[in-house]
Amino acid sequence: MKVQVRRVGLIGCGVIGSAFLELVWKKSSFIKSYSGIDVRIAALCDLNPKIKRIAGKFGIPFTPKAEDIINNPDIDIIVELIGGLNPAGKYIMSSLRKGKNVVTANKALLAERGREIFRAVSETGKALGFEASVLGGVPIIKSILDSLQFGGIKHIYGILNGTTNFILTEMSRESESFSSALKSAQAKGFAERDPSLDIKGIDSLNKISVLSFLCFGKFPQPKKILAEGIERISPRDISYAEELGFAVKLLSAAKSSNGKVDVRVHPALVPLGHPLAKTDGALNSVFVRTLAGGDFFFSGLGAGGKPTALAVLSDVLNIFRQKYSYRFLANSRNNLLFLDKGDLIFRYYFRFSALDKPGVLAKISKILASYRISIASVTQKKSDFPHGKGKIVPIVMLTHAAKESDILKAKAEIDNLSEIREKSQMLRIEEL
Amino acid sequence: MKVQVRRVGLIGCGVIGSAFLELVWKKSSFIKSYSGIDVRIAALCDLNPKIKRIAGKFGIPFTPKAEDIINNPDIDIIVELIGGLNPAGKYIMSSLRKGKNVVTANKALLAERGREIFRAVSETGKALGFEASVLGGVPIIKSILDSLQFGGIKHIYGILNGTTNFILTEMSRESESFSSALKSAQAKGFAERDPSLDIKGIDSLNKISVLSFLCFGKFPQPKKILAEGIERISPRDISYAEELGFAVKLLSAAKSSNGKVDVRVHPALVPLGHPLAKTDGALNSVFVRTLAGGDFFFSGLGAGGKPTALAVLSDVLNIFRQKYSYRFLANSRNNLLFLDKGDLIFRYYFRFSALDKPGVLAKISKILASYRISIASVTQKKSDFPHGKGKIVPIVMLTHAAKESDILKAKAEIDNLSEIREKSQMLRIEEL
Repeated sequence: MKVQVRRVGLIGCGVIGSAFLELVWKKSSFIKSYSGIDVRIAALCDLNPKIKRIAGKFGIPFTPKAEDIINNPDIDIIVELIGGLNPAGKYIMSSLRKGKNVVTANKALLAERGREIFRAVSETGKALGFEASVLGGVPIIKSILDSLQFGGIKHIYGILNGTTNFILTEMSRESESFSSALKSAQAKGFAERDPSLDIKGIDSLNKISVLSFLCFGKFPQPKKILAEGIERISPRDISYAEELGFAVKLLSAAKSSNGKVDVRVHPALVPLGHPLAKTDGALNSVFVRTLAGGDFFFSGLGAGGKPTALAVLSDVLNIFRQKYSYRFLANSRNNLLFLDKGDLIFRYYFRFSALDKPGVLAKISKILASYRISIASVTQKKSDFPHGKGKIVPIVMLTHAAKESDILKAKAEIDNLSEIREKSQMLRIEEL
Repeated sequence: MKVQVRRVGLIGCGVIGSAFLELVWKKSSFIKSYSGIDVRIAALCDLNPKIKRIAGKFGIPFTPKAEDIINNPDIDIIVELIGGLNPAGKYIMSSLRKGKNVVTANKALLAERGREIFRAVSETGKALGFEASVLGGVPIIKSILDSLQFGGIKHIYGILNGTTNFILTEMSRESESFSSALKSAQAKGFAERDPSLDIKGIDSLNKISVLSFLCFGKFPQPKKILAEGIERISPRDISYAEELGFAVKLLSAAKSSNGKVDVRVHPALVPLGHPLAKTDGALNSVFVRTLAGGDFFFSGLGAGGKPTALAVLSDVLNIFRQKYSYRFLANSRNNLLFLDKGDLIFRYYFRFSALDKPGVLAKISKILASYRISIASVTQKKSDFPHGKGKIVPIVMLTHAAKESDILKAKAEIDNLSEIREKSQMLRIEEL
C-alpha cells in the first residue's frame, strides 16, 4: 500500500492538545494500515515554554509563534486548540487565507464569528473540521451533515455541558445545594476554578448555536437568545419536580416552527421517561427529531481531553481523505428568522415562598388570571419555618401553556406582593 | 454553482425501495443546493409488475431484469434493496465487477458472504455503502469507521431488532405472554407474518456480524456463534428480573477480550439503569465502549422504510461526494480468533419449576456444586398451582460467575430430576 505523509501543525497544547498528541502517537500505525496516511505532527506552538520539553520528547519542532506554523508551506492542516476568541480567530482566518485546512474545537469562536469563518471556508475552498466543538467524541456534526439533515430536522435538544449536568445530577442524588455540588464538581475535576461560562449556560449557548447553524443554516445572535444558567436551582425544586414526574436539566434547544427558529438554553423540566432526563453525571446527549427518519438520540462524554482529541483526529483524517466537501447553507436562507424569546410558549413550574395566611393563593391566582395564565395544579408543601405567625410555606404550581412575556410580567407582580417573602422560582416545562 | 447529474439504478422496490424513491423525490432540490449533485433514479427493477406503474408515475424507466440496470453504462450506483441471499449476492458481485458503486441494506448477505464481497470491493476499488444494514437511519457505521475505531473499541452491545424489542417491551408493560405480544406486534405492523428471522435472533446475528467486522476486522462464522431468540421468555421471567434490578433484552454483543472476539445474540438480563435497558418498543440502540473516548450510546428507529431509506440516501450522497475511501482491515487480522461459546462466563438467572417438597433445593445445589457453580441468591416465589400435594413452586436463583459449558451440563442434570416439572429457565446476566 502506498503511504502518504501528511503534516499537521498544532497550535495550543493544553488538555485537548496533549491528548491529541498522545492519541496520534498511539494510533499512527493503525491509521497507516487503515487509511494509508502517515499523520505527522510537524510543528507545535504554545505560549507555555514548558510545552517545549513535551515537544522535544515527541521529536516535534516547537515554536512560540503561531505564524511560523501558519506560514510553513509543508503543513497541510492547522489544528487550533487554544480556545477563546483571540487570537484563535485571527489564526484560523489567516490559516484559511494561506490555503490551509483547519480543525478546531472552538465553539465560542464559531458561535461569535461563525458567519465570517464559514464565508472564508467557502471562498478559499478549504475545509474546516469542527466535530470537537460539540459533544466531545460523539460524531454528531458528521451525523447531521451526512445523514440526519436529509430526513428534515424538526428540532434538536441537547444536554451540552458536562459540568452543569454533573452538578444537577449530584444535587438530585445527594439533595445537595448548588454551591456544595459545585464544590464537589470542582474537587473531582468536572468544573473549572472559574466555572461561570459553564454554569451560566454560555458554553451550552455556544454549542447550540453551532448546532442551529448545522440544522437550520444560520447562526443566531447570542445576545438575542434566552440563555439562563443553573445557579438559581435548589435541591427542593429538583425533588418537587421529580414528584411531578420531571427531571431538571440545563436544556439547549433549536427548533424550527412556523418559519421561525427557536434557539435557547435554560433549566427545564424534562419528563422522567425521556432519554434526555436519563443523561446523568458528566455525560452529554443530543436528541434529534426528523420528519422522515423519526427520533435519534446520541450520548457520550461531552468534554475532557481524550474524547475531544478523538473528534479532532477524526476531522484530521476525514480532511486528509478529502471527505469535507460540504457546502453550507449559510447564505442561502437569509429570510430565516429567529423566534423572539418573549413569544415562547411553555407550561411552567412555579415555587412561591408565601406567608401562611388566608388569601395569598387568591392574590396569586388573580394576577395570573389577569395575564390569561391558567393553573393546572397547586400543592402546598410542608413549611420550612414551622413557627406560628409569619410561617412561610412553599406553594408548588404547574400552569397550562402560557406566553413567556406574560409569565415574566405576572411573576414580577407576584414577587411584589407583601405575602411573598423571596423571589419566586420559575422553571419551564419542555414538552418533548 | 455547477450541478453534476449522477444516476442511480434501483433494484428492488418494496417498503424500503419505495420510501427511498419518495425521499429522493422530496429532497432533490435541497440536495442540489447543498451538495451540487442532481441525484436521478435512472432505472428501476422489480419482479412485481405493479411497480411498473409507480415507476411510470415518477417518470423512471422500468425493467424486470436487473441485468439491464447493472449493464447500463450511464448508471453510477446500484442500490440493492431486494434483500435475501439470492439473487442479491449475484447482483452485487456483478455490479462491482462492472465498475459500479453499490449501496445495500442487506445484512443477511453481508453476514454470510461479507468476506468475499469486501474482497471484491477492495479489488475493484469501488465503494460499498451499507449504513442501512444496521440501526436504520442512525449513522452508526460511519460513526465507527470515521471516529470511534480510532479510540480503540473494546466492545459493542446492541439491541438490533425492533420486532423482538417491541415484543419484550409489551410483555413487560402488559404482562402479556410471548405469543399474545407477538400477535399485537403483528397487528401493529411491527412483526412480519413469518417473524422467525426476528424472534429467533437471526436478524440480530446478521447485524452483530456486520458490527463485528467493523470493530474487529473480521466476520464470525454464523454457525459457531451463540444465537438464541426470545420464544422461551415468559412475562414471569421479566417481572422476576425486574424485581432483581434487571430488564430482559435480546442483546447482541461483540467484545474483544484476551485476543479473542466474543460475538453472540441471546436474551440477557441488563441492569435497569443502563441506557440499553431503557431502549423501549421498536427502538434500536448501540452502546460502544472505547479505550480513549469513553462510552457512546446511539439510538433510533432500527427498521421501517423511511429511516432505512435515509441511511441509503446518505450512502448514495457520500459515494457521490467520494467519501468512501475506506480500506477495511478484513485481511489484516487473520490471526484474530472468535471465542468458543462454551468458554463464555456469566452470572446466570435460573427459574426452576419444582415440586414443593423437602430436599429439592438440596439436590439442585448439589448438582450446581459438582460443576463449581456457586449460588448468589435464591427466592422461592408464590406457587402457580396452590393445591396441596404435587404443588409446584417457582424457585428463582442468581448464580455467581460460571462457565457456560458447566451451566449447560448442570441445567441438563437438574432438568432430569424427578422433582423438576418443566424445563428450567436460564438467562444470562450481562455485566455492562
